[in-house]
Amino acid sequence: MTDSQNRRIVLASRPEGEPKPADFRLETAPPPEPRESQVLLRTRWLSLDPYMRGRMSAAKSYAKPVEIGAVMEGGTVGEVVASKSDRFRPGDVVLAHGGWQDFAAVDAKGLRKLDPSAAPVQTALGVLGMPGMTAYTGLLTIGQPKPGETVAVAAATGPVGSAVGQIARIKGARAVGIAGGPEKVRLLKEEFGFDEAIDHRAPDFAERLEAACPNGIDVYFENVGGAVWDAVFPLLNDFARVPVCGIVSHYNDTDLPAGPDRTPQLMGAVLRKRLTLRGFIVWDFADQAKDFHRDMAAWIADGRVRYREDVVEGLENAPEAFMGLLKGRNLGKLLVRVS
Amino acid sequence: MTDSQNRRIVLASRPEGEPKPADFRLETAPPPEPRESQVLLRTRWLSLDPYMRGRMSAAKSYAKPVEIGAVMEGGTVGEVVASKSDRFRPGDVVLAHGGWQDFAAVDAKGLRKLDPSAAPVQTALGVLGMPGMTAYTGLLTIGQPKPGETVAVAAATGPVGSAVGQIARIKGARAVGIAGGPEKVRLLKEEFGFDEAIDHRAPDFAERLEAACPNGIDVYFENVGGAVWDAVFPLLNDFARVPVCGIVSHYNDTDLPAGPDRTPQLMGAVLRKRLTLRGFIVWDFADQAKDFHRDMAAWIADGRVRYREDVVEGLENAPEAFMGLLKGRNLGKLLVRVS
Repeated sequence: MTDSQNRRIVLASRPEGEPKPADFRLETAPPPEPRESQVLLRTRWLSLDPYMRGRMSAAKSYAKPVEIGAVMEGGTVGEVVASKSDRFRPGDVVLAHGGWQDFAAVDAKGLRKLDPSAAPVQTALGVLGMPGMTAYTGLLTIGQPKPGETVAVAAATGPVGSAVGQIARIKGARAVGIAGGPEKVRLLKEEFGFDEAIDHRAPDFAERLEAACPNGIDVYFENVGGAVWDAVFPLLNDFARVPVCGIVSHYNDTDLPAGPDRTPQLMGAVLRKRLTLRGFIVWDFADQAKDFHRDMAAWIADGRVRYREDVVEGLENAPEAFMGLLKGRNLGKLLVRVS
Repeated sequence: MTDSQNRRIVLASRPEGEPKPADFRLETAPPPEPRESQVLLRTRWLSLDPYMRGRMSAAKSYAKPVEIGAVMEGGTVGEVVASKSDRFRPGDVVLAHGGWQDFAAVDAKGLRKLDPSAAPVQTALGVLGMPGMTAYTGLLTIGQPKPGETVAVAAATGPVGSAVGQIARIKGARAVGIAGGPEKVRLLKEEFGFDEAIDHRAPDFAERLEAACPNGIDVYFENVGGAVWDAVFPLLNDFARVPVCGIVSHYNDTDLPAGPDRTPQLMGAVLRKRLTLRGFIVWDFADQAKDFHRDMAAWIADGRVRYREDVVEGLENAPEAFMGLLKGRNLGKLLVRVS
C-alpha cells in the first residue's frame, strides 16, 4: 500500500535509572498490513510524555509495560493511507496511539478524526488532548480551586502545568508556577500569565516559594515530587487538595532516598491539616471529555489559554528528545514531527 | 455552692516521647464559681482519648495545646449542681468539655442535655458521641464502602474501630479488624462481628493480613500508622480510600524513623493506584451530627452496633489509664468514673 519502509523505535532493554540511547533501537521493516476494520496510518506527529518512562519498566502500574523488542508506545496524529474501515478514507487525519514509528496499522474503533481547519492537528496531542485534559480534570475535579485561593504547579511551562495555571486563573485563583531556569520563569509570567513564577534551581528556592505564597497553598497539582514537593509541603494550608498526577523527578530512581523515613511526617500533616492527596490518570475522568473539549476550545479561541510547542524534527531523534524531557530540557509540549 | 474540694489534674510538663506520671499533677482547690450564663458541673464521667496526646505537645495542630499548669482537656458527662443559665437546672445531666477535674464551670451554650432514660449517659462520650461520630463520618464520607468491598481498621476493639467495622458490615462490606493480643482478636469476631480479626503482634502479621484480604483492601480507616500501615499499604487496591483519623503509634515519637525515606514510594502508589488519602477530624463534619445520632441510635437499638466500655474508677487514676491507652492496654471505650 506504500513503497516506504517503516522505521520504528523499539525498547531494546529496560533502563536502570535514566534511560540511555542503548535502551532504544531503530529498526526498519515493511509497513504493517491493516486487517479488517483497521486503517494504515502514516505518522505525522508523535507525542513524547513523561508517563512513557513508566511503560519502559516492568513494575506493576496502571498500564502494561512495553515488551522488550516491541515498538515504544505513544500518542500520534497520523494520516490515513489505506483503510479497511468504512469510517475512514485515505487523507483523513486522525488522533491515534500509533507509537514511535512511521506507519501503524490500528483499529478504526479507537480513532478520532481531526478537523485541520478547527485547530492545528498536533494540538490534539497537547492542549486539546491528553495533557490538557489531565490538567482540566485533575485541577477541577480533585483540586477544586476557589476564587482567591492559591494554586501551585511545577513543570509549569509544560503542557499540563501551563494549562493548570491558566485554568486556575480562569477560576479566579492565584497561580504560582515553578519551573527550571530563567527562560522558563520569564515565559510563565509573560506567556502564560502566572501571578508568580519561581525557579526551582535557585539556591533559595524554598524561601522564594514561601514569599510567593503569603497565604499558603490551597491546591498543589503534583507532577514532579522531590525537592519541589519538599518546599511545597510546609506551605500547604488546612484542607489543601493535592491532585497527584506524576512524580517525574523519581521516575529514574533505582533506590529510595536516604532517611530518615518521612512517611509519618506526611501522614501526620494529612491528619492535622486535613489534606486530601488523590492520585489520578486522565482516563479515570473519560466521561468529562466533552466538557473538556468544549471549555478548552473556547478558552483557546478567546485567548485565555495559550500553549507552546517544542518540536523535534525526525523520528530518529525521539529517544534523545525523550531523555531530555525527563530532565526538563523541553520548552512546552514536546512533539516529534515524523513526516 | 458545694462543700467539696475540686481535685484537678493539670499538665505539669510537656512529655518527651511517652507521657510519664511526672507530666501530670493532681491539685486541690475550691470549686470554680460559675459566671453569668454558666453552670457548675460535677463530673460523673471523663473520656480518655488518643487525641489528648496532641494537646500535651506545643506543636502546631488543629487545636491549641493545653498550657503548662492548666487542667487537662477532655470530654465529660456531668451533673449540674448550680446554674446561672435559664436553660439548665440542678440535677440535669449534660455532655460537656469539662476536663480532668471534679468540678467545672462551663458556658451553658456548649452543653447538650442528656436523657438518662434513652441511653446510659456515658455513651455520649463513646458510641453515641465523638468516637462513634468519628467512625461514622470518616467511614461514610471519605471511605464510602460499597457492598462486597473490604474495609480494614486497626485499634479495632476501640470505640472508633469497633464502630467502623460494624458500620462497614451494615453497608454490606467485609470488615477486617486488627488488634493487639488474643483477647482483643477474639472479641472482634465474637462481640463485634468482624469477618476477620488479625493480631498485629503475631510475628507473621503481614502474611495473616494478606490472607484475610484475598481481594485486597478498598478502604483502610487509618488510626494507628506504623507497622500496621506498612502491612496494609501493599494490599491497597486501585482507587482505595484512606480516611486518616489518627496515627497513634507515632504520637510519642521524638524523631522520625530511620531511612530510607519512603515518601516517594507512598506518592508513587497514590499515583499508580489512584489512592485517596484524606485527613479529617470529626468536627469537620459537624453538619452530619443529626444523621449520625439518628442512625447510630437505631443501630444500637436493633443490635447491629454493639459497644464496650473499659471503666477506670477515680480521677486520680486518669493519668495512668491515659498512658495505658497510648499502649493499647484498654479494652473498649476508656472512661473514668469520677463521681
